[in-house]
Amino acid sequence: MSTRNKIHLREDQLPEAWYNILPHLPNQPAPALNPQTLQPVGPADLEPIFPLEVIRQEYSPDVWVPIPEPVREVYKLWRPTPLFRARGLEKALDTPAAIYYKYEGGSPSGSHKPNTAVPQAYYNQQQGVKRITTETGAGQWGCALAFASQHFGLTCEIYMVKVSYEQKPYRRVLMNTWGADVYPSPSNRTESGRRILAADPDCAGSLGIAISEAVELAAQSPDTKYSLGSVLNHVLMHQTVIGQECIKQLDEENIIPDIVIAPFGGGSNFAGISFPFLHMNLTKGTNIRCIAAEPTSCPKLTRGVFRYDFGDTAGFTPLLPMYTLGHDFVPARIHAGGLRYHGAGAIVSQLLKDKLIEAQAVDQISAFESGVLFARTEGIIPAPEANHGIAVAISEAKKAKEEGRKKTILFNLCGHGHFDMSSYEAYFSGKLESHELSQAEIDEAIGKLHTPEVPAQ
Amino acid sequence: MSTRNKIHLREDQLPEAWYNILPHLPNQPAPALNPQTLQPVGPADLEPIFPLEVIRQEYSPDVWVPIPEPVREVYKLWRPTPLFRARGLEKALDTPAAIYYKYEGGSPSGSHKPNTAVPQAYYNQQQGVKRITTETGAGQWGCALAFASQHFGLTCEIYMVKVSYEQKPYRRVLMNTWGADVYPSPSNRTESGRRILAADPDCAGSLGIAISEAVELAAQSPDTKYSLGSVLNHVLMHQTVIGQECIKQLDEENIIPDIVIAPFGGGSNFAGISFPFLHMNLTKGTNIRCIAAEPTSCPKLTRGVFRYDFGDTAGFTPLLPMYTLGHDFVPARIHAGGLRYHGAGAIVSQLLKDKLIEAQAVDQISAFESGVLFARTEGIIPAPEANHGIAVAISEAKKAKEEGRKKTILFNLCGHGHFDMSSYEAYFSGKLESHELSQAEIDEAIGKLHTPEVPAQ
Repeated sequence: MSTRNKIHLREDQLPEAWYNILPHLPNQPAPALNPQTLQPVGPADLEPIFPLEVIRQEYSPDVWVPIPEPVREVYKLWRPTPLFRARGLEKALDTPAAIYYKYEGGSPSGSHKPNTAVPQAYYNQQQGVKRITTETGAGQWGCALAFASQHFGLTCEIYMVKVSYEQKPYRRVLMNTWGADVYPSPSNRTESGRRILAADPDCAGSLGIAISEAVELAAQSPDTKYSLGSVLNHVLMHQTVIGQECIKQLDEENIIPDIVIAPFGGGSNFAGISFPFLHMNLTKGTNIRCIAAEPTSCPKLTRGVFRYDFGDTAGFTPLLPMYTLGHDFVPARIHAGGLRYHGAGAIVSQLLKDKLIEAQAVDQISAFESGVLFARTEGIIPAPEANHGIAVAISEAKKAKEEGRKKTILFNLCGHGHFDMSSYEAYFSGKLESHELSQAEIDEAIGKLHTPEVPAQ
Repeated sequence: MSTRNKIHLREDQLPEAWYNILPHLPNQPAPALNPQTLQPVGPADLEPIFPLEVIRQEYSPDVWVPIPEPVREVYKLWRPTPLFRARGLEKALDTPAAIYYKYEGGSPSGSHKPNTAVPQAYYNQQQGVKRITTETGAGQWGCALAFASQHFGLTCEIYMVKVSYEQKPYRRVLMNTWGADVYPSPSNRTESGRRILAADPDCAGSLGIAISEAVELAAQSPDTKYSLGSVLNHVLMHQTVIGQECIKQLDEENIIPDIVIAPFGGGSNFAGISFPFLHMNLTKGTNIRCIAAEPTSCPKLTRGVFRYDFGDTAGFTPLLPMYTLGHDFVPARIHAGGLRYHGAGAIVSQLLKDKLIEAQAVDQISAFESGVLFARTEGIIPAPEANHGIAVAISEAKKAKEEGRKKTILFNLCGHGHFDMSSYEAYFSGKLESHELSQAEIDEAIGKLHTPEVPAQ
């Protein structure tokens, strides 16, 4: 075993194509449906809101989709990203497991999100689009799209969940620094925002509402498109540079991991690291466990229902087959980080339904406890989202110790927590709360859903 | 010319020794003096507050001082750091100059400061020290020492300038996350703090006061030592890994820069990048201009006096020969970032006196204007300190355009601004102020000095 703590790749080892898992799935996800007609949504239906190349990729049957050279050039600002052996954490846990983590926090915006923001901005620019709209919660995605839009000379308009806009001003200032316009959502700038404000002027907002606002604006103007930071196939695919690099890096140590872990919001972080390993499971006979780490306050994978649902609150998006808590589920305000989205992407949902991946829910206090142990042993301050993945990695390393087995555990350290120190402060002062939903709350959230069932395959 | 934007080194190219410029100086700095006896301070005088190896390095006659392997191992968490060609910035400026920047913001604490915090913590641990005390202003240094102390299992006690402690809670939380204890200075925990609070209970604090508190505690207890983040010879030497890496990186492009620029607080940032290039000037006949960028609100290099002065406010430290504004100079509160220290290190002061380096003062608003242009063209959000260096780089690139000359400009992007977004917010909202001291203010500050003149050489 090498004693190297950091495994770096050369720039020329940056992946040349994204991996599209869709053709390899044993069962294809049910098609997205038009909510009015309940007929499958085709590429043409998406043209008002997405650029053509993005739509093509959403439906692509190709296993490998080439990364355009201008996108690779921007990636090279921070990619390939380092893979670390967590020797400090291993020692603190006294575990026989080898723990590795991929660090995506070195990107300009501090998370994995630019991996898809950059190509999306590029394809929009290539098509002559002038303005991109999007939503953001804690702000990781908004920052990434602001950075990417600035790079390709596009105007960027961001609808930020109001409670985050007010409580987390610094990510907003970061977006402003990259030239983006940021509005608290619900806003008065859209029909959907005005409708919600009329019913509840103090509405704290949600990702679903902010998506409605951003999509509404894109649909109204031919030179404006919408960009999504998770859930959809093309977004998940763009993130696969993460896992591809991990495979090359672990290969240098002659290692195939036993377990791959990532935090789970809409699925892009998890897909990014796990899909290239699932590729090995699906085509090369490996048996790597891939575990999605979600918060107990928003547990769509572990306690949600598999059903057609909208991606947004107002119902502008197509109906997607997903594990969901219902499109108007609003997570408790206690939750510090992202991962607050009500549903999971169609591919990831299908993988879970087919038992090709696993999911675990982590409560917020355990997540921060794990994050602080990580910071003290490895030096990097993780984002609250990342803490959920770290908690699962620690739990699996402890199991390895109980079992006396030398497992290799890999997790995605998807971003740094530099803009989340108020959450750490709350944790240290005992003010951070955990929230586990009661079965009645889950039943109530899901009971409101009147969307179609996903037909059995 | 290569089209690569990022020049990376392999881990095995990490420098194996620090560069000590002292033996190469044409004129040695005058010795530090004991303030009571006015006799030169010898190594033994420093033993109560520094570990032996640090003292040895402070006086070392060796040109190259080997970096211990355990220190190199920690360096490898983020070193070698990347060197970027600023093509986006060059394009925006339409300059014939090639602009390169070394990015030190990828360290765990986000600046160049761990380059010296790590060896200092290591040498203390080796000597059996249990606790390190230090001061911090904006928090960059405190974070670095908290991280390094945590790594080597030492207790870390940090005196943070009160106005920063109150206005910048997030760097404090970062220090807490790495297990350090942070106190607002002046505090009631030391004699010097109590004396100042008795005279002025609302005292906002200064670096000089915080140094007095930290040094006082170290002097009282044999298992406690003090650690300084700039000014002294050993600190500057530890930072030379920066410039050494730059030389290797530029060498890959067959480039010797015309101009090397860094922000200037006490000198460690500037020394880190410039001393290895000054080594070339002093021993190989190159003529590289090295420019220190200081704030107009604390202009010791451009408007201060060359004289013996204390490193702290209370007068606990030896008298050092330095460019200074006087040890009780308190910069205007308007200033957002670091660089607020009253004096410059002895070596850097001697270099300036001998006209081997240059200095320029930058006002705060110009600095932020430059920083925002940089963020929008290069993607990285710079620390306010770093913005001063960027401003000088931009000014030199504009001169190159006027002169129609293809110069190569290198600057040290010493840290990211993730914990300084409130300053960016102030800049965007027009609330950020610049402050240029009047001649009367300068005269008043310097007029208070009753310390000895430095004898002519």
